Amino acid sequence: MSDKKELRIAMIGTGLMARTHSNGYNRIRDFFPELKYKPVMKAVCSRTEAKVKAFAEQWGYESYETDWREIIKREDIDAVDICTPNDMHADIAIAAAEAGKMVLCEKPLARSVAEAQPMVDAIEKAGVPNTVFYNYRRIPAVTLIKNIIDSGKLGKIFHYRANFLQDWTISPDLPQGGEALWRLDVDAAGSGVTGDLLAHCIDGAMWLNGPIKDVSAVTETFIKERVHQGTGEKQKVGIDDACIFHCHFENGSLGLFEATRYARGHKALYTLEINGEHASLRWDLHNMNYLEMFDHADDGIVRGWKQILITDGDQPYMDRWWIPGTSIGYEHSFVHQVADFLKSLEEGKPCEPTFKNAMMTQKVCEAVINSANSKSWQDTGL
Amino acid sequence: MSDKKELRIAMIGTGLMARTHSNGYNRIRDFFPELKYKPVMKAVCSRTEAKVKAFAEQWGYESYETDWREIIKREDIDAVDICTPNDMHADIAIAAAEAGKMVLCEKPLARSVAEAQPMVDAIEKAGVPNTVFYNYRRIPAVTLIKNIIDSGKLGKIFHYRANFLQDWTISPDLPQGGEALWRLDVDAAGSGVTGDLLAHCIDGAMWLNGPIKDVSAVTETFIKERVHQGTGEKQKVGIDDACIFHCHFENGSLGLFEATRYARGHKALYTLEINGEHASLRWDLHNMNYLEMFDHADDGIVRGWKQILITDGDQPYMDRWWIPGTSIGYEHSFVHQVADFLKSLEEGKPCEPTFKNAMMTQKVCEAVINSANSKSWQDTGL
Amino acid sequence: MSDKKELRIAMIGTGLMARTHSNGYNRIRDFFPELKYKPVMKAVCSRTEAKVKAFAEQWGYESYETDWREIIKREDIDAVDICTPNDMHADIAIAAAEAGKMVLCEKPLARSVAEAQPMVDAIEKAGVPNTVFYNYRRIPAVTLIKNIIDSGKLGKIFHYRANFLQDWTISPDLPQGGEALWRLDVDAAGSGVTGDLLAHCIDGAMWLNGPIKDVSAVTETFIKERVHQGTGEKQKVGIDDACIFHCHFENGSLGLFEATRYARGHKALYTLEINGEHASLRWDLHNMNYLEMFDHADDGIVRGWKQILITDGDQPYMDRWWIPGTSIGYEHSFVHQVADFLKSLEEGKPCEPTFKNAMMTQKVCEAVINSANSKSWQDTGL
Amino acid sequence: MSDKKELRIAMIGTGLMARTHSNGYNRIRDFFPELKYKPVMKAVCSRTEAKVKAFAEQWGYESYETDWREIIKREDIDAVDICTPNDMHADIAIAAAEAGKMVLCEKPLARSVAEAQPMVDAIEKAGVPNTVFYNYRRIPAVTLIKNIIDSGKLGKIFHYRANFLQDWTISPDLPQGGEALWRLDVDAAGSGVTGDLLAHCIDGAMWLNGPIKDVSAVTETFIKERVHQGTGEKQKVGIDDACIFHCHFENGSLGLFEATRYARGHKALYTLEINGEHASLRWDLHNMNYLEMFDHADDGIVRGWKQILITDGDQPYMDRWWIPGTSIGYEHSFVHQVADFLKSLEEGKPCEPTFKNAMMTQKVCEAVINSANSKSWQDTGL
Repeated sequence: MSDKKELRIAMIGTGLMARTHSNGYNRIRDFFPELKYKPVMKAVCSRTEAKVKAFAEQWGYESYETDWREIIKREDIDAVDICTPNDMHADIAIAAAEAGKMVLCEKPLARSVAEAQPMVDAIEKAGVPNTVFYNYRRIPAVTLIKNIIDSGKLGKIFHYRANFLQDWTISPDLPQGGEALWRLDVDAAGSGVTGDLLAHCIDGAMWLNGPIKDVSAVTETFIKERVHQGTGEKQKVGIDDACIFHCHFENGSLGLFEATRYARGHKALYTLEINGEHASLRWDLHNMNYLEMFDHADDGIVRGWKQILITDGDQPYMDRWWIPGTSIGYEHSFVHQVADFLKSLEEGKPCEPTFKNAMMTQKVCEAVINSANSKSWQDTGL
Repeated sequence: MSDKKELRIAMIGTGLMARTHSNGYNRIRDFFPELKYKPVMKAVCSRTEAKVKAFAEQWGYESYETDWREIIKREDIDAVDICTPNDMHADIAIAAAEAGKMVLCEKPLARSVAEAQPMVDAIEKAGVPNTVFYNYRRIPAVTLIKNIIDSGKLGKIFHYRANFLQDWTISPDLPQGGEALWRLDVDAAGSGVTGDLLAHCIDGAMWLNGPIKDVSAVTETFIKERVHQGTGEKQKVGIDDACIFHCHFENGSLGLFEATRYARGHKALYTLEINGEHASLRWDLHNMNYLEMFDHADDGIVRGWKQILITDGDQPYMDRWWIPGTSIGYEHSFVHQVADFLKSLEEGKPCEPTFKNAMMTQKVCEAVINSANSKSWQDTGL
Repeated sequence: MSDKKELRIAMIGTGLMARTHSNGYNRIRDFFPELKYKPVMKAVCSRTEAKVKAFAEQWGYESYETDWREIIKREDIDAVDICTPNDMHADIAIAAAEAGKMVLCEKPLARSVAEAQPMVDAIEKAGVPNTVFYNYRRIPAVTLIKNIIDSGKLGKIFHYRANFLQDWTISPDLPQGGEALWRLDVDAAGSGVTGDLLAHCIDGAMWLNGPIKDVSAVTETFIKERVHQGTGEKQKVGIDDACIFHCHFENGSLGLFEATRYARGHKALYTLEINGEHASLRWDLHNMNYLEMFDHADDGIVRGWKQILITDGDQPYMDRWWIPGTSIGYEHSFVHQVADFLKSLEEGKPCEPTFKNAMMTQKVCEAVINSANSKSWQDTGL
Repeated sequence: MSDKKELRIAMIGTGLMARTHSNGYNRIRDFFPELKYKPVMKAVCSRTEAKVKAFAEQWGYESYETDWREIIKREDIDAVDICTPNDMHADIAIAAAEAGKMVLCEKPLARSVAEAQPMVDAIEKAGVPNTVFYNYRRIPAVTLIKNIIDSGKLGKIFHYRANFLQDWTISPDLPQGGEALWRLDVDAAGSGVTGDLLAHCIDGAMWLNGPIKDVSAVTETFIKERVHQGTGEKQKVGIDDACIFHCHFENGSLGLFEATRYARGHKALYTLEINGEHASLRWDLHNMNYLEMFDHADDGIVRGWKQILITDGDQPYMDRWWIPGTSIGYEHSFVHQVADFLKSLEEGKPCEPTFKNAMMTQKVCEAVINSANSKSWQDTGL
């Protein structure tokens, strides 16, 4: 163990993503024992002392802070992991980069391209290792899709479609804002399902199928007013409850995307499908250990969609876990991203998606919102 | 049997749809014995004598013609069923209506709104019974969806989505045009997947969820040139290979539609889903005997999507067929439409979708094509 | 049409199977136009005149009888199709064979081996064409399984399992006996689920995987008494409500079978699976147009169960029906068997399963019942 | 943290189960922070020093031993967790109990009833807390099945069926014995699939559906000889490769069980289904986050099997993990069992299944093997 190098982490935030990231660091010793870097849970930061203290104890952080600026000042911190609401990403990331710390950031990068650009600039200028948690890339079935596409197996691509369907905001009695519901507050979140859900679909799409050139979108806010938990008043809802867009990819394929929190019966149904000349692939988050594949090269009389259970040691990341037939879960995607980040430090390579890379998704999200607002096609600039 | 009234049918065409419609008429005696009208297969018409003669023998037509105008002149014909390529629908339908014959027509009505309008006018003026074969309405699971929606079970509707995915034109070596492939020839078909496939999705959507107000579409022609079977020359492909659009329904819900013949692995995957406040419904043609339903009123701890096998006598049309657990097929939807048409004659009511009703779908299809061509939102005029 | 040879059919029975068989004959002209033999619906027979008359009219029989012995006497009948309750199969089949008529019989052959043996003897002695309607062999996916197994693709077979699960007799208020419920009356049916449901599974198993050598079974009668519709009295239930057995096949594989009418939620779930050294196959009646296949020869990283939609022209029987992606139903299996019977007449070959072949299934059924009654392993004698 | 009570654990073994159990202990702090007992990873034991040392480092054990007797002697150990091959369970468990240590043991208890009885006696005599890792009880969907059955929702039970299908030993080139393959060596394992796989099915069945009274079984060893890794010689294979049995439960329902390692295409397909008068439930390990339920009380026209995704906070154990729609994996079942064990210490209650309880499964397994060997029904003595 003596040959391990410590990577001293500070976590900003104590919400859901702070939990998934912390679990990621905490699993490294047991499941990626060969890595040279060893995460040390140095500090966690959140405004409410009782809460941050309890979080530190539960997740094994050595100390806590209630002001993130204190984290930046501390010399015993190598890397800052940002799991705050979106409106705080920029300030923290820029300060951390300027202080020479590595920066890991939950997606989306920021509330807008304008807000995100200085973050990317600061990171680039500082030259610090960085990554953005578009965690679904690291679900083994999704990583395998990337490998299959890169092998050329699909041939020319005709269609890419993805959606992310939820149903948790259908009740008009649900408030907006506050710690628990900042995702419904446009000031904190920047947008609704576009930044929260579609951003995942867009990141995945461009990773797998290349740049999106232009978009035509529509958004809808079904519930127009909700009580704001901060003010206690009924206020206009500023976010998009649903967003649909179609687009052209640079490679000539057509894209189709949809996200909503009003699809009764779907909890977190992120689905993607890609249709190529020779083969097609399909995946969804509710059955995350399965990959579906149609291979036109199969004997015509017995051609069909294969349900591939991704649990074998020769499938991505699965040599780390159990035995064929036994599943892993949602949280493992974060463990994989942490492991890949540590590996990238060893190898001196970037850990995709970097801030720069995540900026592409930010630009598509913004083009989508602009298209919906202007009822016109918008170029993404990519 | 003596109390049965004969309905003397003439079929125009001998292609796939002529077969499905003919089978519809031929099954009535065995499966709808209580109907007052009894189809009599009087004549079939097609240009090639050898072919039409063989068709007449196989399907039990008493006579045949090689010029459809002869059919119109014959006094022993009560009803004309049009199963020709789209470019002949208008002439035949108008002539038949003017001759006072009932008109049954395969979808879509025509190649354009301009072409369809005189058809509707002629039918209305003649006052003859008429129907258009948007046959998927009569698949029992789809009819049940209509019944459930009409019962109010779903509450406010948020989303409607449908697609129709095929993969049979991916090869660039496939020619266009001629008897077998007129669907790929824009002159004969009017459009590509929009009129052939999306028209079904649009008809179903407006039947189930009301009028579509405006649309924003994109189309693509992946293979730009194909040999034309008529000329033997490589010619520009004029049809749309793929079409995607989103839209607003009059009831405030968002719609999302896609059709393509380039989705490798999907043969005829017509899928529809509707998300309401209280429940959601889902269906697809590859599993046509199943309806999927999510009912939020179920006990929360055991809520889920139900796979409902539609084979019981109390489910639409299923008292006609076999026993619980035993499936019916694609062809039965046409049998049901013929039976419903005969029933409508008994009752003196229209058999939906009528020409007038099918005109609504024609208008949406045209708005879709116009939107794609102009890269702008288009009102449907509905 | 003048070159067609008439095959004059008499149907005995007017129940569910009389309907499925009659539909079989009635579809031949439209879907198998090349066959030399043309079924002529000469007569139908059943004890109740009103009922048999209506049946004749609905299904197109030229005449009717109320005593099956009259059918045997008639010289204008070439073939007798037996769709009565099981207890009448033997008398009719033997008389028909002795009168030199072809015999088609609904399964199972009879109530017991002792009752079936003279039937087989009479048929063999008369040398008349014959077949038994184990119709599920002619579902395209099942026929394809046979073809794949015969190709050697699976290698050595380790396991065969099949079940047939229903739930329609769970209510203790359901009576037994009478026209509608003779399947619950041991005197009419011979046995319960063993002869009614497992017989199908056993026929399929031996067709696909060879003879069953010995069996070990258990049966259960969950509801001990039911009102008999004949007597109006509560009477002991003599049939088996459920039956499970395991067995050895001659090829060394293990078999596992189950049938019940008490599996809540399953309407007619006939499922079969066969596991070989190199590949496995799976099918069920609720999704009858799908075949599932696992092929170990596939690239290991993307190996999985394929869902093969059996609707293409190069798949068994499917050149007769519609287009890729469009399903057929339960009734089509009977159409296929009738077509195969007519073809066998043309070719002068037996139409499997013949009476002799069906006797094998009868023997296994009897060994199963004996095993359950004696609580011991029983040889089948095959 | 000061109020936590340490539970000092020693792990015996470094194989797959040592990993799953170790992970169980290591997750408690982060996911069950309210528990009074805090596992402390005191020592791990295995014969090979290099291996046990690496294991200790990876999983955070403070020390290691190479002789399990040293563990028993150590006073700084409160609980011994036995993850060795089956042939060592008895010696270690008895010694640990006699030394007054808590005993946690991987299933099955032992190689035979005769070997297991003294273990149960020793545990009972010592009165030490104990549990056996039939981990599948703690998969949320399975726990929910238990809750639903206990609520009376299913009514009278007619059928219980379970199987456990694998395919990893099909190759005749696979050796038996040694550290990696002791499960194939009858001396180390006691039996083949019966103790390894069916034991899980039997434990689940009796937990959910009560005692099994008698059994009728068949077993098969498809590959008769394999090279033994210890001797390097080809030796007779003593284990059962496949086992099938049917049985009567005390409550009058019929049971059907099968396990095999020769079902090509199935990796670890543990499936269970229970059919009651009013409802049925179904689950399988490959889709472990789903429960399937058919509820006859649903409106008849929309009755069907529900796919219930078990990821909500009100479903068993799921308040510990993430958000609706996000899955957990195989390893979580062990975390839950560890948490339940710690909770049971707090509450002074047994943690089911205890050794005594696991003895019931041992008895059924033995009756199964005896039945197969004697070709006769065997009482289980329960």
